[in-house]
Amino acid sequence: MTAAPQTMFKPGKGAGEPVGLAILGYGTVGSQVLRLIHENSEDFLHRAGGPLEIRGVAVSSVEKHEGSLASELGLLTTDAESLLRRDDVDIVVEVIGGIDYPRKLVLEALEAGKSVVTANKALVAAHSEELAQAADAAGVDLYFEAAVAAAIPVVGPLRRSLAGDQVETVAGIVNGTTNFILDAMDSTGASYDDMLAEATRLGYAEADPTADVEGHDAASKAAILASLAFHTRVTFEDVYCEGISHITAEDIEAAKQAGQTIKLLAICERFRDEQGQEKVSARVHPTLVDREHPLASVSKSFNAVFVEAEAAGRLMFYGNGAGGNPTASAVLGDIVGAARNKVFGGRAPGESTYANLPIADFGEVLTCYHIDMEVEERQGVLAELAKIFADNGISLRTVRQEGGEDVARLIVVTHAAKERDLQATVEKIKSIDAVQKITSVIRLMEN
Amino acid sequence: MTAAPQTMFKPGKGAGEPVGLAILGYGTVGSQVLRLIHENSEDFLHRAGGPLEIRGVAVSSVEKHEGSLASELGLLTTDAESLLRRDDVDIVVEVIGGIDYPRKLVLEALEAGKSVVTANKALVAAHSEELAQAADAAGVDLYFEAAVAAAIPVVGPLRRSLAGDQVETVAGIVNGTTNFILDAMDSTGASYDDMLAEATRLGYAEADPTADVEGHDAASKAAILASLAFHTRVTFEDVYCEGISHITAEDIEAAKQAGQTIKLLAICERFRDEQGQEKVSARVHPTLVDREHPLASVSKSFNAVFVEAEAAGRLMFYGNGAGGNPTASAVLGDIVGAARNKVFGGRAPGESTYANLPIADFGEVLTCYHIDMEVEERQGVLAELAKIFADNGISLRTVRQEGGEDVARLIVVTHAAKERDLQATVEKIKSIDAVQKITSVIRLMEN
Repeated sequence: MTAAPQTMFKPGKGAGEPVGLAILGYGTVGSQVLRLIHENSEDFLHRAGGPLEIRGVAVSSVEKHEGSLASELGLLTTDAESLLRRDDVDIVVEVIGGIDYPRKLVLEALEAGKSVVTANKALVAAHSEELAQAADAAGVDLYFEAAVAAAIPVVGPLRRSLAGDQVETVAGIVNGTTNFILDAMDSTGASYDDMLAEATRLGYAEADPTADVEGHDAASKAAILASLAFHTRVTFEDVYCEGISHITAEDIEAAKQAGQTIKLLAICERFRDEQGQEKVSARVHPTLVDREHPLASVSKSFNAVFVEAEAAGRLMFYGNGAGGNPTASAVLGDIVGAARNKVFGGRAPGESTYANLPIADFGEVLTCYHIDMEVEERQGVLAELAKIFADNGISLRTVRQEGGEDVARLIVVTHAAKERDLQATVEKIKSIDAVQKITSVIRLMEN
Repeated sequence: MTAAPQTMFKPGKGAGEPVGLAILGYGTVGSQVLRLIHENSEDFLHRAGGPLEIRGVAVSSVEKHEGSLASELGLLTTDAESLLRRDDVDIVVEVIGGIDYPRKLVLEALEAGKSVVTANKALVAAHSEELAQAADAAGVDLYFEAAVAAAIPVVGPLRRSLAGDQVETVAGIVNGTTNFILDAMDSTGASYDDMLAEATRLGYAEADPTADVEGHDAASKAAILASLAFHTRVTFEDVYCEGISHITAEDIEAAKQAGQTIKLLAICERFRDEQGQEKVSARVHPTLVDREHPLASVSKSFNAVFVEAEAAGRLMFYGNGAGGNPTASAVLGDIVGAARNKVFGGRAPGESTYANLPIADFGEVLTCYHIDMEVEERQGVLAELAKIFADNGISLRTVRQEGGEDVARLIVVTHAAKERDLQATVEKIKSIDAVQKITSVIRLMEN
């Protein structure tokens, strides 16, 4: 009989004892974390069980932050390693960003017996195993609520509230930049390039928007969500990732006509393959969502995570998925949790990978395709195409033909089929003379 | 300096050690809890840190449950008190319902050092103080996630995820029966009586729907939500409560025309009175909600809890707020949490009432009125009415007049004002000869 990972236990230091914090990084999140702890110290005292005392804030340059609260309080230091090792530091808060440097610091902190609170999705998605092992070895906590959808409680609900349930699916709008762009395209009919420019102008997109628009940011979150939902380690490399830069105003218009909208979704599923083997998959791609679905109404830069579980049924968590304050809210919730354990003893649930389900190859995953193409307007073309779908074992849900002069527009929506077979079918269709152009291929979410 | 309530700490029994459960009640929830633990025992072993072993299921009549799983497993007993006192019982699960009898059993269990998981909103809303004190005295956990909105994680997020934030407002659709009725009235235009009958036919309403339609059920949940959100003890008696039985098809139609819908909301607020004193209020009443608001799209018997916090901004939690399986999901999440603490040591956050804010009289609360009335169609009436609002210090947001033969319909929406002043104003208006009828007065949610 296997037991849960952690067996080590440390008693608390006792109610009323101070809890020392080291904050690594002083950007939009770190500065809000410091400000809120400073302004609400009385509340934190009661909620954590003892006063939260900031021992220092590590930055790359002290000059850069002159006049800031951290500077006024004399907390700034460039020596992160000495700070996190201090005996009077119990919790290390990592809000630097990036992977290699924070990874080094977080591992050092855990090994030094400090609990760690991080908002770093890339770090957690890439190195969950060594981080979890270091935390377990030291018997301390590793919290990362802010790593997924900022202020929206997702990690906690999956780890705790749904700990007695079996999660089947997680489908999330977990990137505000891409949701802003797609929502703006949907409401204005404008092009991707124009709305990306608008997002950049309004500060929703960074100078280099690649990580957002190509889905890499969402893929990190998908890995974390799948790991939590299925008690299986899923990393960034395991996630199929497709961005939104190829989505056109025409795609959005076609979706509208079909009563749908296009969202960039992080989809995590547990399913059984033909051999009855249970597997998990995590993927990120533009998805046609029925306007009746709760996810369809998530507008602007808001995030939402939709969960379907065996007993709970359908749940959705909605809110601000980015920004200094919303991220600080999640970080502070984690700080209180970690501080409570330092004061009263006990540990938060650690990484849970006991189910250790195989991760499906993307080709095996069941998806639905929405194929928009231009075909010759002549007899027999539809029959020819229908045969190709049939030969590849793909059954069709709807076929819509809009006649033109000598070119007809054909929109085909398939039933769920193996991604591999759908891709092969599209390749085959491309090779047909009668098919002049495949305008778009977008996957569809089955309600 | 005051410390958090609990100071007592019990080390865990150690990983792999069995955790004994006593289930009190075997109705729709209890039977699903037993089934799911039985079917997923391997999962629970890993998630709780040790095997969950059911010691018994207490019922009023063993015969009544012959042939059930509990009966097959030989778990049924009518002696709840002996069961919950057994040395090999660590956690007592109360899913009986009612107040007095479960209250007695839960207190006995806590005093006997057992952690308690309950789904009983009425019990928690009426007796939170003595339950919390008994749990603290014994150093055990009292969990009640299922008491509010069943499967939707609300208690956990308010206690943990938002523990570092300052909650300003909680507005929830926390009663599925009334939401089903109002949503059905909205989509069909039918009357309250017809849709109540429909809800009863479909099993969404009980034979005696009073507790649901008059808002008592929602009021219990409002008390729990306000207590958690504001770290102040708010009980059922503190909640202003108004049901939906007086809502007419005409009210719904008028709301539609104004781009709104009517929802029964449990509203919990933190605000400052004229003297700058911070106060809290909790109330339940039909509310006009703008169709753009996330709560407006919550259809059928679904529940949703909308939270506004200082740093997190706007959050919403959506899902199934009732039913055997969704409620069991929440109960099981709590069981895993309580079991982990028995195995690894540590305690869940207990009741937090340190803020101890005064509870505002409903008359002091700021609300907005939507007043629909019939007035004589003659000069000067509007001026006369406007003067009354002005004299009572009420400023108007919108005034809409629909002329008739000699009777005009007048719809007035006020700005936020003291509930007391608004009530007085309506009384004054009633006394005017020119006002033939006040069709309806419904409060409005400010976005």
